[in-house]
Amino acid sequence: MEPKWFTYDIVAEDPATHARAGVLHTPHGDVPTPIFMPVGTKGTVKGVLVPQLKELGAKIVLANTYHLAMRPGADLVAEMGDLHGFTRWDGPILTDSGGFQVFSHEEFCKLSADGVRFRAVDYDGRWFTWTPEENMDIAQKLGADIVMQLDQCVGYPAPRSKVERAVELSAMWAERCWKAHTRTDQALFGIVQGGMDLTLRRRSLQHLLDVGDFPGFGIGGYSVGEDHETMFESLAPLASQFMPREKPRYLMGVGNPTTLVRGVAYGIDMFDCVLPTRTARMGTAFSSEGKLNLRHARFTHDAGPLDPACSCPVCQGGYSRAYLHHLVRQKEMAGSILLSMHNLYFLLDLMRRARESIIAGTYGEFVSRWMDSPAAADW
Amino acid sequence: MEPKWFTYDIVAEDPATHARAGVLHTPHGDVPTPIFMPVGTKGTVKGVLVPQLKELGAKIVLANTYHLAMRPGADLVAEMGDLHGFTRWDGPILTDSGGFQVFSHEEFCKLSADGVRFRAVDYDGRWFTWTPEENMDIAQKLGADIVMQLDQCVGYPAPRSKVERAVELSAMWAERCWKAHTRTDQALFGIVQGGMDLTLRRRSLQHLLDVGDFPGFGIGGYSVGEDHETMFESLAPLASQFMPREKPRYLMGVGNPTTLVRGVAYGIDMFDCVLPTRTARMGTAFSSEGKLNLRHARFTHDAGPLDPACSCPVCQGGYSRAYLHHLVRQKEMAGSILLSMHNLYFLLDLMRRARESIIAGTYGEFVSRWMDSPAAADW
Ligand SMILES: [Zn+2]
Ligand SMILES: [Zn+2]
Repeated sequence: MEPKWFTYDIVAEDPATHARAGVLHTPHGDVPTPIFMPVGTKGTVKGVLVPQLKELGAKIVLANTYHLAMRPGADLVAEMGDLHGFTRWDGPILTDSGGFQVFSHEEFCKLSADGVRFRAVDYDGRWFTWTPEENMDIAQKLGADIVMQLDQCVGYPAPRSKVERAVELSAMWAERCWKAHTRTDQALFGIVQGGMDLTLRRRSLQHLLDVGDFPGFGIGGYSVGEDHETMFESLAPLASQFMPREKPRYLMGVGNPTTLVRGVAYGIDMFDCVLPTRTARMGTAFSSEGKLNLRHARFTHDAGPLDPACSCPVCQGGYSRAYLHHLVRQKEMAGSILLSMHNLYFLLDLMRRARESIIAGTYGEFVSRWMDSPAAADW
Repeated sequence: MEPKWFTYDIVAEDPATHARAGVLHTPHGDVPTPIFMPVGTKGTVKGVLVPQLKELGAKIVLANTYHLAMRPGADLVAEMGDLHGFTRWDGPILTDSGGFQVFSHEEFCKLSADGVRFRAVDYDGRWFTWTPEENMDIAQKLGADIVMQLDQCVGYPAPRSKVERAVELSAMWAERCWKAHTRTDQALFGIVQGGMDLTLRRRSLQHLLDVGDFPGFGIGGYSVGEDHETMFESLAPLASQFMPREKPRYLMGVGNPTTLVRGVAYGIDMFDCVLPTRTARMGTAFSSEGKLNLRHARFTHDAGPLDPACSCPVCQGGYSRAYLHHLVRQKEMAGSILLSMHNLYFLLDLMRRARESIIAGTYGEFVSRWMDSPAAADW
């Protein structure tokens, strides 16, 4: 069903690239694009509380349907006032379909007549069956502002026939999700699959356009093992030439700073990834000098800030690299928390500055400056 | 050496109990007493950042000399602007002596001619020797506002002869610490030992009074295995009848809410304990209804706040017990963080309210009300 509450406005288009600045209007507030969306897998962005997310400038948060459907369950979340009431994040929320997690354990996942049968290996190991209709029922109970269709994501490399079958299955499921989804305060995005093959990607997109008037599109099945150039070979033309101009484009599961900068140039509007928080918990920080592993002994006596070019609460808070090194080495929660905050801010701020330069009509220079900087080196 | 920057004023004394309200003046700010001091063992209160500590109303934070001397080392901390600069907590700080940790592994700890030889079992297992002079050197490098003498803490039960020897050794070390300590912007507290024996406790106190004009006194060697009534049997007369009125009294390592309420009635001014943060990480919260284990299935559908009587950011933030139960069960950092914040606030606020009622001259009623409440039941 078409959403009543969801619209997308393009504010500016960059003359030299395909980048655009926009605004997503959702029932829980506006989201400026391009945007990075922090991931709160189980209803919490690991280590970062809601007031801190707001302080960092997060505008929309992602939550994972598979994990939440397992624990605490969609019915409980609905009972507690949906994800907004349950997690106390009162801004816009996006939920994935859970398809990625379901298909990630191939040996415990079988296509059934009308859906997918899978084993919840991360939980109690029980078998479940999801039809697209049941998946939409869960999405509607979780109550995010944007929900994704159930799709099949294929790893890389994969035989063309397998990718082709996933495209057809995802298209069939797109149609069933479209019909089953009834909440008008929730936007249902279709997902373009098709691996690294532009022809299959275009076929997948055409299927979606045939199914209904989706208010936005996810681009799935990238960052599944391929290198960056392989990804952009099909992603760049797909996003910049074939996807409808007037709809938001969401590149799923990608969170490397340089990929964000380049993706925006091809017309991507939305990104999500666990990378900033996951690498933070391992002691790694994004920085204007490239990635820094704070576990390294060279930081033991380093009195300087994590990233002198960063204006996040951690870099501006007077914490030294020596202190962060100590916290990371001693496995203190504060190490994970402070690096997570910095890494999230780094991507949020990167997209904020990208948006400004799109509006200023100088995004081409923004990309060149980034690619010439040490920050782009070790992506 | 006598501190220049440290004074203690008594603001009010309760007519019905031995409770008093006071103010500690330190180089980094004033501390109202009675007070609970959150413990930042390795230079961070586990899971709770400095801005959150301030929001919770923390006025003074404790750090552990043994752990910091091992990692990152006192010289590094000094190089980074002492504990205040290193941890970014710019308020008052207290460091223990490390004696408690050193003596807690009896098999790896030997008294040497002029100090104690011990194995750093929590770290690389190397052997170290601390003399009282070296211990003071470390304390002065760490740069806390209040530092504790090196002492020997004895477990319970223990033969009288062993407790007696610890009293004599601690007195000897008190004298050497007193002589070795030179920073006038740092207050050195002596520590009263003596186990559960009032005679030995009084002897220990007298030793300290003979050594020098200590600006305050720790009371060590309690909460080492004995039950609460056994503790109060000697602690109550010690604090209320024998310790100098004009000096602050710090009951070390005790953090149970009911012990705090009763301790204040006997004239204790300061408390510290890892209990609020450690139990939080295990899913347990203090509450006006007594301790709550959030792991319990009975909270699965509980939409109410953690403690309806609490005004902390967690209880006022709209988080349901159901959400906290989910976070704790899923081992999410947010569960540890939110419960740690609540538990710290619970003790900080308890002492704030205790102080108000001492000033109002009604602390006797405060104690009765507490002891009649469900909160006092399961201490
Ligand atoms: Zn930063
Ligand atoms: Zn609370």
